[in-house]
Amino acid sequence: MTGVRENRFGRVRARMQEVGVEALLLSLGADLPWLSGYDAMPLERLTMLVVPADGRATLVVPRLEAPRVEEDPAFTVRPWEEGDDPVAIVAGLVGSRRSLAVSDRTWATFVIALQGAIPGASWIPSSGVVGPLRAVKEPAEIEALAAASAGADRVAAQLLSGDIPLIGRTEREVSDDISRRLIAEGHQKVNFAIVGSGPNAASPHHHPAGRVIGRRESVVCDFGGTMGGYCSDITRTVWTGPPDEEEVEAYSLLQHAQAVGVAAARVGVRCCDVDGATREVIEAGGLGRAFIHRTGHGIGLEEHEDPYISPANREVMVPGHAFSVEPGVYFAGRFGIRIEDIVVATEHGPRVLNSVSHDLTVLDV
Amino acid sequence: MTGVRENRFGRVRARMQEVGVEALLLSLGADLPWLSGYDAMPLERLTMLVVPADGRATLVVPRLEAPRVEEDPAFTVRPWEEGDDPVAIVAGLVGSRRSLAVSDRTWATFVIALQGAIPGASWIPSSGVVGPLRAVKEPAEIEALAAASAGADRVAAQLLSGDIPLIGRTEREVSDDISRRLIAEGHQKVNFAIVGSGPNAASPHHHPAGRVIGRRESVVCDFGGTMGGYCSDITRTVWTGPPDEEEVEAYSLLQHAQAVGVAAARVGVRCCDVDGATREVIEAGGLGRAFIHRTGHGIGLEEHEDPYISPANREVMVPGHAFSVEPGVYFAGRFGIRIEDIVVATEHGPRVLNSVSHDLTVLDV
Repeated sequence: MTGVRENRFGRVRARMQEVGVEALLLSLGADLPWLSGYDAMPLERLTMLVVPADGRATLVVPRLEAPRVEEDPAFTVRPWEEGDDPVAIVAGLVGSRRSLAVSDRTWATFVIALQGAIPGASWIPSSGVVGPLRAVKEPAEIEALAAASAGADRVAAQLLSGDIPLIGRTEREVSDDISRRLIAEGHQKVNFAIVGSGPNAASPHHHPAGRVIGRRESVVCDFGGTMGGYCSDITRTVWTGPPDEEEVEAYSLLQHAQAVGVAAARVGVRCCDVDGATREVIEAGGLGRAFIHRTGHGIGLEEHEDPYISPANREVMVPGHAFSVEPGVYFAGRFGIRIEDIVVATEHGPRVLNSVSHDLTVLDV
Repeated sequence: MTGVRENRFGRVRARMQEVGVEALLLSLGADLPWLSGYDAMPLERLTMLVVPADGRATLVVPRLEAPRVEEDPAFTVRPWEEGDDPVAIVAGLVGSRRSLAVSDRTWATFVIALQGAIPGASWIPSSGVVGPLRAVKEPAEIEALAAASAGADRVAAQLLSGDIPLIGRTEREVSDDISRRLIAEGHQKVNFAIVGSGPNAASPHHHPAGRVIGRRESVVCDFGGTMGGYCSDITRTVWTGPPDEEEVEAYSLLQHAQAVGVAAARVGVRCCDVDGATREVIEAGGLGRAFIHRTGHGIGLEEHEDPYISPANREVMVPGHAFSVEPGVYFAGRFGIRIEDIVVATEHGPRVLNSVSHDLTVLDV
């Protein structure tokens, strides 16, 4: 991994030159582990890697976390003791540099404290530096994403085959069942397991709770976890008994729109045009108002990262971009449908990492 | 709960007057659910409650999260659509107010964007407004903490009685076992389950991994979860076979120091003096250099919150303060010991929420 990391440090420093950032300050989020192999804990004790464009990097870390840091030739470790001021230590390492980038997920407390300790600096989120690099996956990263997707696929296949009972169970029970299966299929961590049934299926980010799943309902199951550091994310919608004509038509339209979105995801195409391809099908089918979110999001070390497949993102697809294509239609108080796969842009066209059927599936279980 | 929340809004507005904050902006972290009952998802789509000191509160929320928001008389819900700019919406609600507080854990991306959209404002972390309120637990909150602690106690009792096998298992296996038991004992979520054995016990925040636990080792087990919204957190150190004289002496000293810390945690005493009481015992026993962290942290909706029991915190204890007392001693490459209970300051002295024995426990399992 050391060679990969040295290479990443080199590319990050080149990007810093390109965008005019003099020092990169990495704390919470995936930029830090991607670059350094070290993952900060989400704590009130500051961990921050200071990467000057023109000097050696230093990892500022609480003394009691320091034993977790592996020695790395690419940076110096600077443990701080209880009673020390880690913000002052970071400010010292920043020195006179004033064009700074800070991890997107750094807590506001630290941003505010750093702004006080480093007056007159300009700040951008680190995704402005690292995002485009992380968005282009290396071959080993694509295989890690494929392995995670395959694990999620095995759970989705159990759902479609009726192995996961639905009728008469609460959404929470089904969600817990899916979570256990994600772990059993090789994920180290479950990130989410949305189960929205009947009217709850109309809430895209529904929190599964006590609703008991009935017959002839659409059930949106959207789940994913982390395997080998990389994320899976898949959605399938099944019915617990025959859907009515409107539901069948909406499902078929959505299935078509999702396939068109995947087909559009080619190298050289703008992300907004992939979103547009999907959206156009749904609008032409008369359900435009029911499609209330973007088409997808990048995926990698984080569940959601660059590139976003949204109407606003004019970024152009390059080989190695990995993202979801997940249109949905939602009818408040009635039902909802979403279909999602993970896709990688390649020179040979879109590579879909999920292989579980999109056929309308009716379960009586 | 509505009465409780209205009361909290009232107290928050009084605090805003007191500290001179014109608008409070709540996103990630526990301030938002504590005040509004709504918990933001950690996503790149902004959720933010805007609370003007002098006007009605508004919850800015992505359209696809809006179905999760329960109607509340205390605030208006303002969903935003894909393509909208939520930062501009928040800036509009802030209006001409320029003295602002923002949730401690708000992502840097949003802080930076808000600073661009609201030029010339001064910013403080919301803990400066809400922290002292949240730190003083209401009776129902103390009972929720007690219930969570009792759940953690049941798992700790299983550890001390030898029900949780240690020797021959990896730290990860024991950690997973403890996690399952936390859920079985009523937690909805496991927050952490640190298992550090032998030399790993000398790393206070050790990540349990593949090390197989051997005989005659100290094993630090520090675990907690969330039950009914409130956190548990307990540490016990056990030995897998008879400790040597140095270990017995260190354990006994630490046990004494922990008890002295708890006894010092009285209404009217400064937090730093509680830390000092613990530290003094350990220093007098000659192990001061091995105690590398503060004595404790507040606990409630979050695992770590105000008040911190640290050398730097001159805050005075009031009834309802809830916190850990958890001194530890760590000897690199050899062994470590920590003992932790949760304590609530009351008019009648410290109330310890954990009741599992502190006796030196030797297991041969």
